[in-house]
Amino acid sequence: MLKNHRQPAMLNKLYRHNLTLLTDLYQLTMAHSYREAKMHNREAVFHLFFRKNPFGGDYAVAAGLELAVDYLRQLKFGVSDIQYLGGIKGNDEQPLFNESFLNFLQRFEFQCDIDAVPEGTIVFPHQPLVRVQGPLWQCQIIETALLNILNFSTLIATKAARITAAAQGEPVLEFGLRRAQGIDGGLTGSRAAYIGGCHATSNVLAGKLCGIPVKGTHAHSWVMSFDNEMESFLAYAKAMPTNSTFLVDTYDTVEGVKNAVIVGKKLREEGFEMNGIRLDSGDLADLSKKARVILDEGGFPNANIVASNDLDEYRIKELKDKGAKITVWGVGTRLATAFDQPALGGVYKLAALRNEGGEWDYKIKLSEQAIKTSNPGRLAVRRMFDNGIPQADVIYDANLDDDQKFILKEFKTDKEIPFNFADGKDLLQPIFQKGKYVAKEETVHQMRERTLAQIGLFAKTDLKSYKVGLEQNVWQKKQQLMQLRSS
Amino acid sequence: MLKNHRQPAMLNKLYRHNLTLLTDLYQLTMAHSYREAKMHNREAVFHLFFRKNPFGGDYAVAAGLELAVDYLRQLKFGVSDIQYLGGIKGNDEQPLFNESFLNFLQRFEFQCDIDAVPEGTIVFPHQPLVRVQGPLWQCQIIETALLNILNFSTLIATKAARITAAAQGEPVLEFGLRRAQGIDGGLTGSRAAYIGGCHATSNVLAGKLCGIPVKGTHAHSWVMSFDNEMESFLAYAKAMPTNSTFLVDTYDTVEGVKNAVIVGKKLREEGFEMNGIRLDSGDLADLSKKARVILDEGGFPNANIVASNDLDEYRIKELKDKGAKITVWGVGTRLATAFDQPALGGVYKLAALRNEGGEWDYKIKLSEQAIKTSNPGRLAVRRMFDNGIPQADVIYDANLDDDQKFILKEFKTDKEIPFNFADGKDLLQPIFQKGKYVAKEETVHQMRERTLAQIGLFAKTDLKSYKVGLEQNVWQKKQQLMQLRSS
Repeated sequence: MLKNHRQPAMLNKLYRHNLTLLTDLYQLTMAHSYREAKMHNREAVFHLFFRKNPFGGDYAVAAGLELAVDYLRQLKFGVSDIQYLGGIKGNDEQPLFNESFLNFLQRFEFQCDIDAVPEGTIVFPHQPLVRVQGPLWQCQIIETALLNILNFSTLIATKAARITAAAQGEPVLEFGLRRAQGIDGGLTGSRAAYIGGCHATSNVLAGKLCGIPVKGTHAHSWVMSFDNEMESFLAYAKAMPTNSTFLVDTYDTVEGVKNAVIVGKKLREEGFEMNGIRLDSGDLADLSKKARVILDEGGFPNANIVASNDLDEYRIKELKDKGAKITVWGVGTRLATAFDQPALGGVYKLAALRNEGGEWDYKIKLSEQAIKTSNPGRLAVRRMFDNGIPQADVIYDANLDDDQKFILKEFKTDKEIPFNFADGKDLLQPIFQKGKYVAKEETVHQMRERTLAQIGLFAKTDLKSYKVGLEQNVWQKKQQLMQLRSS
Repeated sequence: MLKNHRQPAMLNKLYRHNLTLLTDLYQLTMAHSYREAKMHNREAVFHLFFRKNPFGGDYAVAAGLELAVDYLRQLKFGVSDIQYLGGIKGNDEQPLFNESFLNFLQRFEFQCDIDAVPEGTIVFPHQPLVRVQGPLWQCQIIETALLNILNFSTLIATKAARITAAAQGEPVLEFGLRRAQGIDGGLTGSRAAYIGGCHATSNVLAGKLCGIPVKGTHAHSWVMSFDNEMESFLAYAKAMPTNSTFLVDTYDTVEGVKNAVIVGKKLREEGFEMNGIRLDSGDLADLSKKARVILDEGGFPNANIVASNDLDEYRIKELKDKGAKITVWGVGTRLATAFDQPALGGVYKLAALRNEGGEWDYKIKLSEQAIKTSNPGRLAVRRMFDNGIPQADVIYDANLDDDQKFILKEFKTDKEIPFNFADGKDLLQPIFQKGKYVAKEETVHQMRERTLAQIGLFAKTDLKSYKVGLEQNVWQKKQQLMQLRSS
């Protein structure tokens, strides 16, 4: 299944309309105004991070970077974009943007450095998932799209990782397209769900564009189109004998399983093996047990029992606790929309800006809570290991010499913990340098393998007490700035 | 603001990749198998409807039809689609679809009739929002995309209508792009939010593609890029004097408002008027009152107080109850993702299928609850009025003569209510006939006006007791089929 499928640049294929205007208007009014203030080309550093693990969990799975790269590689203000911007009016009904700015936009070439965490990496609050460094106005105009893309994909990959963990190795199929939030809520949602650990999707276009395995057999309408269920199963088995999972709950589920067994026997006579049955309503624990008995007694001990109907990690655990005999989990709405928390609160904060003299000024955004105050500097993240097992993640200042870094101020406990900087591995990888793409492309299969491998490694630690914090110099700088700003 | 902007075909512009494969695989395995069973061209009727108003409310606002039309008008299996489908394997590692079916797909021409409720129409549970009639296999392969598009847009338009109702006529700005579920979660979300009643969006691309008004000024990062807040406000006012809403909570909100007043006075000296200020954190009720006093005393009684920060209809009501002096509401995450219920449970059910003799067989999908059992026939919806005020919505069988329709079986009370069929207006309008587009295009402004007009009309009724039900003949047919299927 995981053959080395060459992954196309999905967003570029799907969205031929240039996405440069996929931004909040204030990014452009600020860009215009930075230029008026002759500050637009000052070098800035922004970090994209989230402040709280989604779903009350202990981690997130970074995803969406390839889509963000697609977006960044097509950045360009087209003629119709400029025309549109030129028509936006201020409150005096005169154009909001001056001609000089519009000409400037037309000449725009992306020049930023971007470092980011590869997709499928386990990440934690306050860590930069992306660091953007470059001309202030350029860092600013890409904020909204980066947040849009990375917030959503990271949210769904994390949800998928939680659901596949609950399924304990049994396959999870993603069926969410019909309830997903819009077309690429479905498409990039299916992609992120696969990276997070799902085995396949029902979404054919996601299959085509991303190389994700696709699955599907028949719906209730198939059964309803025939005079009775038996006739419908027989017709389906005849038409598609190598893809036979019978949906058994259109009328009476137990009768449906019995009908499936009869049809499964006919299939076997013809040299085919029934895949199994699917339950889509009722008491799934009870019905799956009854179905298992009927299938086993009918000679189909290996037939799958697929279940669907508003499943998520909580419901899967509940069903497993009740001894459900489900072998494949079909998950739709609650995965595709991250139903219990449909947004990741990722933010993008200015952390450093060169002043007129060319020196770095470090920046923080104050908040009532110290933990919500952003971290200053040009930050990176290093993961420390012991015998290959992750021990701590240190957020450090990439402008500092390595030998200055040896104490971690842990977020949760505020403890000072010594570490050996040289033993760790950096999570952020170079993606763009001076606007040029410098990374190696990966397939979604490689990203999914990364997720599974990292989840395996972190299973050997206690995630609840996993150490994440600031390297002491960053912590000290933050304290200084907080005092300065609140005084 | 509502000039007659010619609306481009948004999805067609945005998604140049053909979306025909935006479907669940089982739609195609069923299509293949209907064809093997020589049933694929039997005429069928499907209805798209939802069973429960979202957000525990009393209505929904239909939206998304234009996007669905875009999707339907581009339906075509391209060469690369056929190649991809030809490569999907069954469990014997042989192709799932036979050559004959792939050739058949390549020759596909859309032939269905589609009737649908115009965007901006107030709708209720169990009413068909869309009726699809045509060859069984064609009705089936468009199910998933129709659900995806209409579920999401209807959900967001409804949320926006609830939020704008809570704002009681004060402008609501949609700021959701950065937290929306993917790129067109943002784009089609902004569109639906506008149709539901929002006044403008921050989303520039939605502005360009749909002709929605766009708004935006500056972010915290603007303020942080200067040595102090006053300097930042002065620089912004200088650069963009006709678009000056100052974000005042980067450091100390009350000081921020005072700084805004100082800068507002300077602007006024130069002949410009400050728009106002924006609050984005803290106790918005209290801070807005303090800000109002400072602005009034400073000579700016007409300056707007914009508020944002996790707002939705509940929070807006709470703030209004506390006497908040907010005049413009910026709503993001909770609108763009419909945070408290991120999916509308719209479904698409077979309701009639011609048998081999060419007669209509009516169909239902049973459920444990009678109300969840689907309704049979070729259905339409008629809204009955009294002096222009809506009184009841009747779901009736379009195959029946009009003079047979005069009793409504109301869902909530099960009461029989007489009505005069001739006095009503049909909600479903012809959109496609035999696969040809026959409707008139509308702008999003017209759709938004429809929402506002209908909300105005329904405000004159008691929505909680608004009568919706089946015309008696449909009800009787349903009872017969339920008895037949459960016996």
